[in-house]
Amino acid sequence: MNNQPIGVFDSGLGGLTVVRALQRHLPNETIIYFGDTARVPYGTKSTQTVLQFAEQDCHFLLRFNPKMVIVACNTASAAALTELYSRVPVPLLGVIEPGATEAVRHARGRTVAVLATESTVASGAYPRAIANLSPDTPVIQQRCPSLVPLIEEGRGADDPILQMLLREYLEDVRLLRPAVVVLGCTHYPLIGEAVAKLMPDAQVVDSADATARQARQMLAEADALSGVSGKGRLRCYVSDNPQRFREIGGRFLGHPIRDVTWVTPEQFFNESLLLASGEEEEAV
Amino acid sequence: MNNQPIGVFDSGLGGLTVVRALQRHLPNETIIYFGDTARVPYGTKSTQTVLQFAEQDCHFLLRFNPKMVIVACNTASAAALTELYSRVPVPLLGVIEPGATEAVRHARGRTVAVLATESTVASGAYPRAIANLSPDTPVIQQRCPSLVPLIEEGRGADDPILQMLLREYLEDVRLLRPAVVVLGCTHYPLIGEAVAKLMPDAQVVDSADATARQARQMLAEADALSGVSGKGRLRCYVSDNPQRFREIGGRFLGHPIRDVTWVTPEQFFNESLLLASGEEEEAV
Repeated sequence: MNNQPIGVFDSGLGGLTVVRALQRHLPNETIIYFGDTARVPYGTKSTQTVLQFAEQDCHFLLRFNPKMVIVACNTASAAALTELYSRVPVPLLGVIEPGATEAVRHARGRTVAVLATESTVASGAYPRAIANLSPDTPVIQQRCPSLVPLIEEGRGADDPILQMLLREYLEDVRLLRPAVVVLGCTHYPLIGEAVAKLMPDAQVVDSADATARQARQMLAEADALSGVSGKGRLRCYVSDNPQRFREIGGRFLGHPIRDVTWVTPEQFFNESLLLASGEEEEAV
Repeated sequence: MNNQPIGVFDSGLGGLTVVRALQRHLPNETIIYFGDTARVPYGTKSTQTVLQFAEQDCHFLLRFNPKMVIVACNTASAAALTELYSRVPVPLLGVIEPGATEAVRHARGRTVAVLATESTVASGAYPRAIANLSPDTPVIQQRCPSLVPLIEEGRGADDPILQMLLREYLEDVRLLRPAVVVLGCTHYPLIGEAVAKLMPDAQVVDSADATARQARQMLAEADALSGVSGKGRLRCYVSDNPQRFREIGGRFLGHPIRDVTWVTPEQFFNESLLLASGEEEEAV
């Protein structure tokens, strides 16, 4: 039994789809979420820069003494997870490994297509993770750079412009008739239905759910599940003014976001300042 | 006569359309460009965060001893210019004032429509600038959040998805039959033709050109034009790995980008480190 929180971070809002799955599979856990909304997105940035940002995000979460940290961002998982293992002294879980495992399970040797950001595609993290599990499974990747802003505008699976763009992105992918399509960005679950409609014969894999299940298994095996009864609390921290995060985030989380604190750069980079603020919050 | 460089900054690539206009109107000037590609975009972020980033960007450029600094980003001009006047000890020029002046000149009292990012629209900087010049000119604003990523994907005025999205953004604007449409984001000149096609009766104003002409006038009045004969040099600095900047930036600049230096966070925030790097560059 371990009542410490689970730390979760993402470049911005997308990781809230992972929080949603965590709240479903681990309802009693306290979750501390950090969204790096001042530097979002990570998906168009280089591996070096994403690694640096991800390490800073992790170290921010460590101040809350988490029992594990979930990298709830495909780009950061792809760019940084391997490095972070040696730099962060708590158990870490990314979203790519669980998504790849789920994809391989469904594909049974047939082709897997991965839809992701520019940076995730360039990293080759999904093909690598899938090859580790099943070397003969063919993998194709498609970058979809403009889906994130369109989703953040509020466009869903039924939006004609989003559908038209998605049809264009998937044009070559569909010709190869993959058995599985991985939604390789935490924003994409919000348009999963549009992907399923364009590729009715493929199994659509959302790594948020797979990640939450793997987190539960890791905690259970380490006897570190929360012993608290009742619903766990979610506290969000963001690096930009929280107004936009609050307005848009509810759609990702599935319910309104209440508890959001703006972390100034001084607080983000200065450990002692932030702990004080965190304690105040707790006292409220 | 003054052979010091002109400093120019933007959140990323867009300001290169302003550089392009500067190279047309002030071909002999040396230009130092900073693109904050590690934290791009600014257009979805809060005024407070954009002001802080813009001030850091300005202070970075001050190390090159510029004779003026051009804020070649509508979002940063909207959020920060007024504050920056009191914090930065060189002449400053933003893109909103020149764009607003040009718009008012063409509108002659009729309606002006401004297309811009979320943050520029929320700031109200264009309506304010236009009201200062011509209080009776009606102004309507339209935010167009997903145009920037679509343009960066390489989509131009003839792309059907971009046209469809633009038609949707302009739906209400067109009903009001504005006499002038301001391209209130430095990315939008690349799709100016698509705007003109949808609104054939409106004059399309691109603030890059107006800004470059105003810069020339300011320098001429201060007797600070370059005395160098021959083409001025352009040196670019970026806060993320320059590969993507180099690949995409050429379309914004109108010719390939040669001279790009990656500024690490250590160099960005530590003045002495960066000056050393700048001098090395100069010696090459």
